[in-house]
Amino acid sequence: ANYKQVIVVRADLKMGKGKLAAQACHASVEAYIKAERKHATIVNEWLEQGAEKVVVQIETQQQLLELFEQLKGRFPCSLIKDAGRTQLQPGTITALGIGPVEEIEIDKFTGKLKLV
Amino acid sequence: ANYKQVIVVRADLKMGKGKLAAQACHASVEAYIKAERKHATIVNEWLEQGAEKVVVQIETQQQLLELFEQLKGRFPCSLIKDAGRTQLQPGTITALGIGPVEEIEIDKFTGKLKLV
Repeated sequence: ANYKQVIVVRADLKMGKGKLAAQACHASVEAYIKAERKHATIVNEWLEQGAEKVVVQIETQQQLLELFEQLKGRFPCSLIKDAGRTQLQPGTITALGIGPVEEIEIDKFTGKLKLV
Repeated sequence: ANYKQVIVVRADLKMGKGKLAAQACHASVEAYIKAERKHATIVNEWLEQGAEKVVVQIETQQQLLELFEQLKGRFPCSLIKDAGRTQLQPGTITALGIGPVEEIEIDKFTGKLKLV
């Protein structure tokens, strides 16, 4: 099977490049840690396949939370809140990391989201 | 001590937001994996402190490789080559992930690099 990690970031926050990259990294590492604990075999296979990561966008915090609610029971997920030291209000939800998981499974939920 | 992870990306490639974020995530996860194997205590402390990540830029591949040569014996480092499926030539070096490491130690090497 083909595995990938999906990182969903909020488009409406209009984060700068560096801010967006840092939030995506938080999501990526946290989802990795969760996946690794529960699904080490999948994670190792994903790493061997090149650790594919896709960064996509969603319009609002509400939509991001709804997606998280759909996914959290099925896949390893990390919801990221900003510490708020720069640019954003403390506690702003910025990103969601998912997996690595099977591509055909996650595409059912995130396949229509646009690439950043 | 205060720990952080530093992610250095190439400015000269002028990557788009999503591409840059994905390369930063590769660097972040790979450096995390290396750090976790060798310095689990530091990594755990960093996670408890909020897993600070800083994304900075460097001008050229040459400068990025020189930095990597300076750092690779001292800190856990991950040099990222792009798979080249989009935007860039296969094998292009895009990013370097460092640590988490002690902030005062890494700032000696990367403290002058500009934030992305």
